[in-house]
Amino acid sequence: MNFKEIYQIKTKEIEGILRKYLPKQEGYQAVIMEAMEYSLMAGGKRLRPMLMQETYRLFGGKSRVIEPFMAALEMIHTYSLVHDDLPAMDNDDYRRGRKTAHIVYGEDIGILTGDALLNYAFETASGAFDMEPERSCQIGKALQILARKAGIYGMIGGQVVDVKSAGESVSGEKLDFIYRLKTGALIEAAMMIGAILGGADEKQVKLAEEIAGKTGLAFQIQDDILDITGTAEILGKPIHSDEKNDKTTYVTWKGISEAKALVEKLSHEAVELLMSLEPKEEYLPQLLESLINRSK
Amino acid sequence: MNFKEIYQIKTKEIEGILRKYLPKQEGYQAVIMEAMEYSLMAGGKRLRPMLMQETYRLFGGKSRVIEPFMAALEMIHTYSLVHDDLPAMDNDDYRRGRKTAHIVYGEDIGILTGDALLNYAFETASGAFDMEPERSCQIGKALQILARKAGIYGMIGGQVVDVKSAGESVSGEKLDFIYRLKTGALIEAAMMIGAILGGADEKQVKLAEEIAGKTGLAFQIQDDILDITGTAEILGKPIHSDEKNDKTTYVTWKGISEAKALVEKLSHEAVELLMSLEPKEEYLPQLLESLINRSK
Repeated sequence: MNFKEIYQIKTKEIEGILRKYLPKQEGYQAVIMEAMEYSLMAGGKRLRPMLMQETYRLFGGKSRVIEPFMAALEMIHTYSLVHDDLPAMDNDDYRRGRKTAHIVYGEDIGILTGDALLNYAFETASGAFDMEPERSCQIGKALQILARKAGIYGMIGGQVVDVKSAGESVSGEKLDFIYRLKTGALIEAAMMIGAILGGADEKQVKLAEEIAGKTGLAFQIQDDILDITGTAEILGKPIHSDEKNDKTTYVTWKGISEAKALVEKLSHEAVELLMSLEPKEEYLPQLLESLINRSK
Repeated sequence: MNFKEIYQIKTKEIEGILRKYLPKQEGYQAVIMEAMEYSLMAGGKRLRPMLMQETYRLFGGKSRVIEPFMAALEMIHTYSLVHDDLPAMDNDDYRRGRKTAHIVYGEDIGILTGDALLNYAFETASGAFDMEPERSCQIGKALQILARKAGIYGMIGGQVVDVKSAGESVSGEKLDFIYRLKTGALIEAAMMIGAILGGADEKQVKLAEEIAGKTGLAFQIQDDILDITGTAEILGKPIHSDEKNDKTTYVTWKGISEAKALVEKLSHEAVELLMSLEPKEEYLPQLLESLINRSK
């Protein structure tokens, strides 16, 4: 099987895990469970849980204790999209070709769906204590990282600066800050949690963070490039939106060819660091490399 | 010192703990830390962290490991108010006599402030693993309860049903469900987490949940009563708002005198159950009893 075929099988496996950890639709509040499923199962690359699972395996992790954390991380990623799409934020009616949650369920339930996914992420992840109580200390560390990287020193922090910078010209330093936090932080969480629960030592967890940081930044710059060079059909979202919104991006900051070179440089650095961990399978390095050439 | 004086001293102590666990206002994202403080330090009864701390002491808890959970619970309560006040929800410009977060900081930052407080609650609580790593298992259990009671089977669940019931007549069973989840669940979390970290056994934690459930329901019915009998000046919020919004409450459902009798019955049941735990101090039973006679 080639990389793409394995990727598709793994994506299906992850979708199965996500579905397993979704709450049953029952009770007076069933609509919120429905809206959570609508948002979580809307497709997507499943890059974060995949990176977590592969990093877990890289360090020898074998049990299912990683699964609630995979689901939790994708729930957090999804809640951030649901809130991002709200009228007071990006005001998007469509995502991945489907109506956004607040369009389908109303703005009030849209807000509550985001809240519910964020809260349920921690509810799901803390279920790991019941699975392997003897590893409570490691699970506690993993939870700390999940919260830290999703919060004001991670994803939310980046989102805040992004929102407050709308309509103004942004310095390179600030743009870098936004990208590292808004996109990078959850990718760092993915690989760090995979490493910790897989049994990595502190130095290895640090290395996983560094690999993920470079990968995340490359991923986000690639997004800027695709907004210029991609097509709406392949991306499943409007192109040239950054230009229309007069947004500072790595492409407007550095020009398209320097941006492309940077993606390549970061990705190769990430892969090189990864190889120093002597992975037994070639899938994870291939996954990181595929970020360079992705067209959507 | 009488109950009121002790209550005021304890409230000040809790405000100090909340302030200690707030993040420093620094970095490009400092505005979100400012908005978190603005919302968290806006006053309030601090009932939830106080119940948690007193229950913790009741079971012999002595260390500071309870503090991050006290702060976390009040952060969760606060985020729910911040999101509740948004234009798409209750659309309130004022709370406790001060402008609401989205009025001061804009609707986008208002949404993100709620997200940040919810996420930071789990970040703060998971800091307890560093304080007493040898108690990771208990801390893990406390985290599970925090997440469960704040989520779709707790506060958010109640909020969803409340929002979806706006403008329709609500059955008694459904009203009871809303009250037990929307208000009761966080009060249950307060006493259950206090019990667990204080060293209570499973049966005692169950009892703490029952006491808190009755207390929370009594508290919420008292809210309905005060909306009719209170004054806007003492309450610090508009009165007769339920009537204006044509809302089903315990008062419209059962009439004012039956509602009052129910508050008294529930509170006395709660106190009786509490006395079976043989508390050494009289403050906690007094606190529960004070809920009957509160005028705001």
